[in-house]
Amino acid sequence: MRPRLGHIQFLNCLPLYYGLVKNDVLLDVDLVKAAPRDLARMLLADELDVAPIPAIEYARHADDLVLLPDIAISSFGEVQSILLLSTRAPAQLDGATVALADTSRTSQVLTKILLERHWNVRPHYVEMPPDLPGMLREADAALLIGDDALRAYWEPPLDLMLTDLGAEWTAWTGLPMVYAVWAARRTFAAERPGALADVADALNRSLLYCRAHLDDIAAYAAKWEPFPAERFQSYFDALQFRFEPQYREGLTRYFEEAHAIGELARVPELAIFGEETS
Amino acid sequence: MRPRLGHIQFLNCLPLYYGLVKNDVLLDVDLVKAAPRDLARMLLADELDVAPIPAIEYARHADDLVLLPDIAISSFGEVQSILLLSTRAPAQLDGATVALADTSRTSQVLTKILLERHWNVRPHYVEMPPDLPGMLREADAALLIGDDALRAYWEPPLDLMLTDLGAEWTAWTGLPMVYAVWAARRTFAAERPGALADVADALNRSLLYCRAHLDDIAAYAAKWEPFPAERFQSYFDALQFRFEPQYREGLTRYFEEAHAIGELARVPELAIFGEETS
Repeated sequence: MRPRLGHIQFLNCLPLYYGLVKNDVLLDVDLVKAAPRDLARMLLADELDVAPIPAIEYARHADDLVLLPDIAISSFGEVQSILLLSTRAPAQLDGATVALADTSRTSQVLTKILLERHWNVRPHYVEMPPDLPGMLREADAALLIGDDALRAYWEPPLDLMLTDLGAEWTAWTGLPMVYAVWAARRTFAAERPGALADVADALNRSLLYCRAHLDDIAAYAAKWEPFPAERFQSYFDALQFRFEPQYREGLTRYFEEAHAIGELARVPELAIFGEETS
Repeated sequence: MRPRLGHIQFLNCLPLYYGLVKNDVLLDVDLVKAAPRDLARMLLADELDVAPIPAIEYARHADDLVLLPDIAISSFGEVQSILLLSTRAPAQLDGATVALADTSRTSQVLTKILLERHWNVRPHYVEMPPDLPGMLREADAALLIGDDALRAYWEPPLDLMLTDLGAEWTAWTGLPMVYAVWAARRTFAAERPGALADVADALNRSLLYCRAHLDDIAAYAAKWEPFPAERFQSYFDALQFRFEPQYREGLTRYFEEAHAIGELARVPELAIFGEETS
């Protein structure tokens, strides 16, 4: 049976998808497209074998999962697609209301970390669908992520302050931010280590391909989306798929900060496939 | 927006899938895998733009659909994956009970046509899940299709007579049998004829590729399925994707026969994309 590989059907994973197609990987895996939150649920329910899942979901289920060593959705500084839009500066949001898009748990926690630990304010939070006018009718600031955030980044609303939370995280911590990781169930890694290694290799080959062809990929994205290629080029440059030691350090720091504000019961060790500790 | 193309996730469409991947078509369409019956429903509900659907479903909704000109799932003679397994010869099934797998409406109607019009018998029919022992506990014959039928074809059950309904159709009519067609909604063809032509071209390129690489595809199939490559080679040779005039004649004959036994209210004209009649 082909390994069942989850895929995030957002623009952030389009470069990887391009690499998967160009490397014929879709012959060797059964690719299942879904939203990140659904992918985590499906992975834990044994409906998928490997999947990109939100970083915070990994932390909550670390005992059941292992991470692929060479891939993550991450940024070192600006990310462009995780934005706080606010009527006043973030450091002035004490006691204000912040609307959090209900599409990303990892970014919700990142927003709270930055507000409470970096800017030292205590707002009230409300979770809402990612509709900017609706959010700002009820709140003083709104977290947008993904394709919704990109649109706001590319066509900034007048009168709103726009804060890139990836840039803020790196400015504050000096570390990269890891938004999503590729995880497998530990049982799958134990029962089919060869299959998991093949999936990891295929992802790495696809990443190498996509890094070497970002021009083509930006042109391809612009063919199907209402924004010019240069904007995709800039976005794909900002978005890293890196997970080397400095990135893992950023991820652990994120877990520590999430724990400090009560969003995570404990800080998990990172269990990396093929790098088992004794 | 990328055209949404349905795909049948059975072995019969594996050669085409291989061609789609090798031609990078998955960059230009949004491929949605499902069972044939679901694909027809999704196409009519505007959840897909183009899809392979059972021949009989096309006939029932012909006013809303157009057909792609160069692709179908068809056979000229033996098909291997649509089988009647019976305790006595089909011509001796008058008054007997025939269990029809509930997975394919086109094959159910083909079975009734052959029994009633070719073998001149009048059995009772019961629709059941495709489980051979369960079917034969309640019936004297069982229609199996798809992967279930292939397994029976490759490892024939003792004491049962095995009849290939594709072979019987061609022996009786002298014509090919068309099991599934690729259809688009007429509204999509009218609004986005260029996109539909692109999808048709991509499918044709993929078919050319797959016909030139059946050896590779058989080896690929054998890698993931518990049967040797020679069997897939033989199956993919039997399975045609042809839809030229003789095949269309076979399809119309099938509709006429279905009409004759009361399974179709009327025999539709074949409306072919790019071949509009005046």
